[in-house]
Amino acid sequence: MNAEIITIGDEILIGQIVDTNSAYIAEQLNLIGVSVYQKTSVSDNRKHITENIDRAFTTSDIIIVTGGLGPTSDDITKQVLAEYFGANRMKIHEPSLEIIKSLMSRLDIPLSETNCRQAELPDCCIPVLNRNGTAPAMWFERNGKILVSMPGVPFEMKAIMNDVMPMISKHFKLNNVYHKTLLTFGIPESVLAEQIKDWENKLPEHLHLAYLPNPESGVKLRLSTYNSADDKNLLIKEIDKHFNRLRKILKTTVYGENNDNLALAAGKLLQQKSATLATAESCTGGHIANMITANAGSSKYFVGSVIAYSNDVKVKMLYVNASDIELYGAVSNQVACQMAQGVRAVLNSDYAIATSGIAGPDGGTAEKPVGTVWIAVATPHKVIAQKYILSKLRDVNISRASAIALNMLRLELINEK
Amino acid sequence: MNAEIITIGDEILIGQIVDTNSAYIAEQLNLIGVSVYQKTSVSDNRKHITENIDRAFTTSDIIIVTGGLGPTSDDITKQVLAEYFGANRMKIHEPSLEIIKSLMSRLDIPLSETNCRQAELPDCCIPVLNRNGTAPAMWFERNGKILVSMPGVPFEMKAIMNDVMPMISKHFKLNNVYHKTLLTFGIPESVLAEQIKDWENKLPEHLHLAYLPNPESGVKLRLSTYNSADDKNLLIKEIDKHFNRLRKILKTTVYGENNDNLALAAGKLLQQKSATLATAESCTGGHIANMITANAGSSKYFVGSVIAYSNDVKVKMLYVNASDIELYGAVSNQVACQMAQGVRAVLNSDYAIATSGIAGPDGGTAEKPVGTVWIAVATPHKVIAQKYILSKLRDVNISRASAIALNMLRLELINEK
Repeated sequence: MNAEIITIGDEILIGQIVDTNSAYIAEQLNLIGVSVYQKTSVSDNRKHITENIDRAFTTSDIIIVTGGLGPTSDDITKQVLAEYFGANRMKIHEPSLEIIKSLMSRLDIPLSETNCRQAELPDCCIPVLNRNGTAPAMWFERNGKILVSMPGVPFEMKAIMNDVMPMISKHFKLNNVYHKTLLTFGIPESVLAEQIKDWENKLPEHLHLAYLPNPESGVKLRLSTYNSADDKNLLIKEIDKHFNRLRKILKTTVYGENNDNLALAAGKLLQQKSATLATAESCTGGHIANMITANAGSSKYFVGSVIAYSNDVKVKMLYVNASDIELYGAVSNQVACQMAQGVRAVLNSDYAIATSGIAGPDGGTAEKPVGTVWIAVATPHKVIAQKYILSKLRDVNISRASAIALNMLRLELINEK
Repeated sequence: MNAEIITIGDEILIGQIVDTNSAYIAEQLNLIGVSVYQKTSVSDNRKHITENIDRAFTTSDIIIVTGGLGPTSDDITKQVLAEYFGANRMKIHEPSLEIIKSLMSRLDIPLSETNCRQAELPDCCIPVLNRNGTAPAMWFERNGKILVSMPGVPFEMKAIMNDVMPMISKHFKLNNVYHKTLLTFGIPESVLAEQIKDWENKLPEHLHLAYLPNPESGVKLRLSTYNSADDKNLLIKEIDKHFNRLRKILKTTVYGENNDNLALAAGKLLQQKSATLATAESCTGGHIANMITANAGSSKYFVGSVIAYSNDVKVKMLYVNASDIELYGAVSNQVACQMAQGVRAVLNSDYAIATSGIAGPDGGTAEKPVGTVWIAVATPHKVIAQKYILSKLRDVNISRASAIALNMLRLELINEK
């Protein structure tokens, strides 16, 4: 069973926004055994939209459309779909109007004619409620195939997808698809490929391996099967068997599975030890704390952080030796170690991470170029630090240093066992 | 002049990664007057790739392809393009081989046969160096039209685009395109549309207005012109004239232009006053500090932050009254204000922001549901706080609370003048 995703909006085509919706929709469809054949982004243009719907109906049974449902003049999706599917008239969808009224009243905004018109839907669609916004979603059918149109605001779309997925499962009979991903950090893709060559060559034909490299999260190794004939539980067992072999080869390079992340992996190890963590961040500026606290439940092991952007804060809050900053510079082994030990002491945590570096674009020297970062980890028993020379790009340096720091902590937690 | 962007990779179609490359490429092409007609994501499949190249050559003169150039078996783009453009043979591109060797030696990894094969390129392409990775880019020509294939790793792709853009400008004669964006925060799209209706109706035919709403950055209003006949400087002046009128209507709702962001807007105001900022974050967990320090030069006004995730840290580091936490709860007017005043005092800054809330998914009560956030701003003269009830989604609550906090600071900085 194939699907296509069509995102509508000039803002995507001129690059003003990154399309995060498509990834989410694709992931959800995959979970119920629907493969996404193609994703297409088109402009707010009638002909371009309808051409692509025509084409997508030839490759797929499911078309998911996002965007172009706003209240303003450049939003034409609803009108185009009404004509495409031959609506006789637009009619007010009362439950959607109620939501619009209550949203506006909660925001203390008078209800406008523009708002009310958003509740008008083509009479040939099945309305799908949007509980978080003013544009309802629409479900259309043609010759057994379906098209669902949703607003482009990500959190509105996600909530609607929750309701649409069971509708799709019910409408179609779906195949067996299964993916599992092993997450690795610290070995580049090409080296990893050499290391696991023998294992990879022994994989059976019906298991497909993909390498998914990402500078912030390492290389993900995904095994997929699209074989609908076999029993799903057997496929799961088979993939687990191959991944167990892979874990023996890669050892601590593997930090998790599927939707895990480095912060979560470190967090799980901390929880096993009933231990707590604090961070002292200079060049990463809160990014590590942000990665940790993005995970629900992180308050169980994360006590907090001191973002010591200025040297004053390093000295005053973290008790870094001012003369060491003078002597070795803020980006040094000594200062990183003292930051980690300092934050561990003042926030009274068991473990601590510290970063001090030159994120760029300015501030580099011949001796310490942009991208130089010292990362330290303090434990109840010791403090270690390591120097990295990353890139010339500020955002890459911040995210990469954060990932390396969390991985250093993770390896310390494993190795001290 | 049209372009199409084709991203290749199963990882995009199964939603394992968000495609950030397309937005960047589209933005770069727009700057030199190239419109992106369509973006398409296809699988690592020979037929699917070539069909889309065939189709894209009918709509566009420029095709930008990313992905599928890795060293592993699922990466087929190079081979497919070699056949598509009729290469006679693959040959080693020595400068690329040098880069691969130096990258591997810097990482202290022995050079493998897999690595070396990445420097083999079809003899019908113009090689484009990839200084940051092992997969070089390729420039192909057919009947005056071009196709550029680049690796999918974002920072490698961005550096290559720097070299490719002048090559495109040189190869084609390009039209006049001009976009300008005004950034607003605090008014929903539909209300904004009502407020500026009269202004919008008076816009001339050749200026196109788009509303770009984003929960973290507010509603962006973009005026575009695609009229190649007119002088570019006149178009710029005309758009500025209309935007100046719009600024008079929207006043302090406008926080910047084009690539500005809320943190930068607040930072500029701080710099005008030679003032400094600190943050005390509970529920936002470092996200505000991260937004501030993402901007180069933020060390001029940002001294640091205390991420006070646990109540202990609030009391010990920020001198929040423990009995007030007991009496009013950590998510309260009193605690938010004391956090802001506390961090302002201990980090010795002129201004401070504090957040305390229930990000979710757990921790909500009937009185304080998930999404309840208190945000406080402390200035040299006073401290103010406000309560918001945001959403049920953790990531939305963190990012939205961060944006509201920065906007509160910005408005305080403007209004106290």
